[in-house]
Amino acid sequence: MPQSQDRVLYDLAGAEPERRFSPFCWRTRMALAHKGLPVRTVPWRFSDKDAIAFTGQGRVPVLVDGETAVHDSWTIALYLEEHYPDRPSLFHGAAAQAVTRFVNAWADRVLVPMVATLILVDIHDHLHEKDRAYFRASRERAFGKTLEDVMAEREARVVSFRQALEPLRATLRAQPYVAGDAPAYADYIPFGVLQWARAISPFPLLEPSDPVFAWRDRLLDAFDGLARGAPAY
Amino acid sequence: MPQSQDRVLYDLAGAEPERRFSPFCWRTRMALAHKGLPVRTVPWRFSDKDAIAFTGQGRVPVLVDGETAVHDSWTIALYLEEHYPDRPSLFHGAAAQAVTRFVNAWADRVLVPMVATLILVDIHDHLHEKDRAYFRASRERAFGKTLEDVMAEREARVVSFRQALEPLRATLRAQPYVAGDAPAYADYIPFGVLQWARAISPFPLLEPSDPVFAWRDRLLDAFDGLARGAPAY
Repeated sequence: MPQSQDRVLYDLAGAEPERRFSPFCWRTRMALAHKGLPVRTVPWRFSDKDAIAFTGQGRVPVLVDGETAVHDSWTIALYLEEHYPDRPSLFHGAAAQAVTRFVNAWADRVLVPMVATLILVDIHDHLHEKDRAYFRASRERAFGKTLEDVMAEREARVVSFRQALEPLRATLRAQPYVAGDAPAYADYIPFGVLQWARAISPFPLLEPSDPVFAWRDRLLDAFDGLARGAPAY
Repeated sequence: MPQSQDRVLYDLAGAEPERRFSPFCWRTRMALAHKGLPVRTVPWRFSDKDAIAFTGQGRVPVLVDGETAVHDSWTIALYLEEHYPDRPSLFHGAAAQAVTRFVNAWADRVLVPMVATLILVDIHDHLHEKDRAYFRASRERAFGKTLEDVMAEREARVVSFRQALEPLRATLRAQPYVAGDAPAYADYIPFGVLQWARAISPFPLLEPSDPVFAWRDRLLDAFDGLARGAPAY
């Protein structure tokens, strides 16, 4: 575990250390930037279980903030909101935080599984060599077929994904951000899903005419182009 | 248009005047109750376009609040929030209101179309005779098949509907209401969809073991059993 006053985020990376592609880590990176909190990100691979064993679990994001280690993107967001109340709010109140949890559940239960089936081979191909066998075996067990079969016919299936974005699209037709006039954590949640895909796959999920595309573009530019500047397609 | 200090809601009704079954009108009724605002509801049928012609459109809910007529459930919620700021808030702030719009879009784009295919014949069978031909013709044109064919195999298809509730279910596993510790408009939105079905169809959408079922039960009891006491299955 890192020491003292350092702030460190363990961030899922591909073979190239700067290719960061976890939808959940991207939520946290945007949340830290929103709060104006500098962070040192550490590239982490699926095989690096030992590096985060101090959290008692094996997944990232893991944030180590001085003496405190926090894992799970939602828990990290709540931690940041509580411990940095004088910084810009991620939620703007308890009720908005509660309703944002619904957005989180929607992204996790609807978007993440659909996007996975559209980019699974691309993820595999960008992984560090030490991660590939684990990734293929665990995902093929979960899906009950090969990565290649899971990703088959994605050109046709992406239409269903775009359809699944309809609640987000309708919201963005009525207001600039999910959180209203300015972005907040309710935006970073679905943005993280799109940035995950963008970071690891050349396959285009969005059509340029989509209001979701324009919203993503604005978030790519946020925080001095934090997400725009990261390795991606 | 009703006069002066009266508060009137035009509320979609079946052949029995007290059977109120619009998912959108139920949102408004719960919102009015949340604000503690008494209302006189007027049973309205699809054929009664003339009765609401003063709004320049042909759908309910229509709220006439003294001198002001407002239509569209979301617009009515914003109107109530703005004009009755000293009453309990429907949103608890601008950010929560913005994120609640996402819940509204999700319910309208995902839940309403799915539930329609599960209860379409039941709706027809409960309509006032004067509405039936219009309803059958307009819905069969929209779906491109008979009401009966749309509703076919609902016992199998209801599984997909329950799956689509997963974001709501996951939220309710973590907190008592979508809006947090107490219900607010973010709850009345999906509740209205379930109350629509419950009001018009004996077909059970939810399993009693579902956290969504328990949440619905609590909302049925809210406001002295406003929804529980209405004609329903």
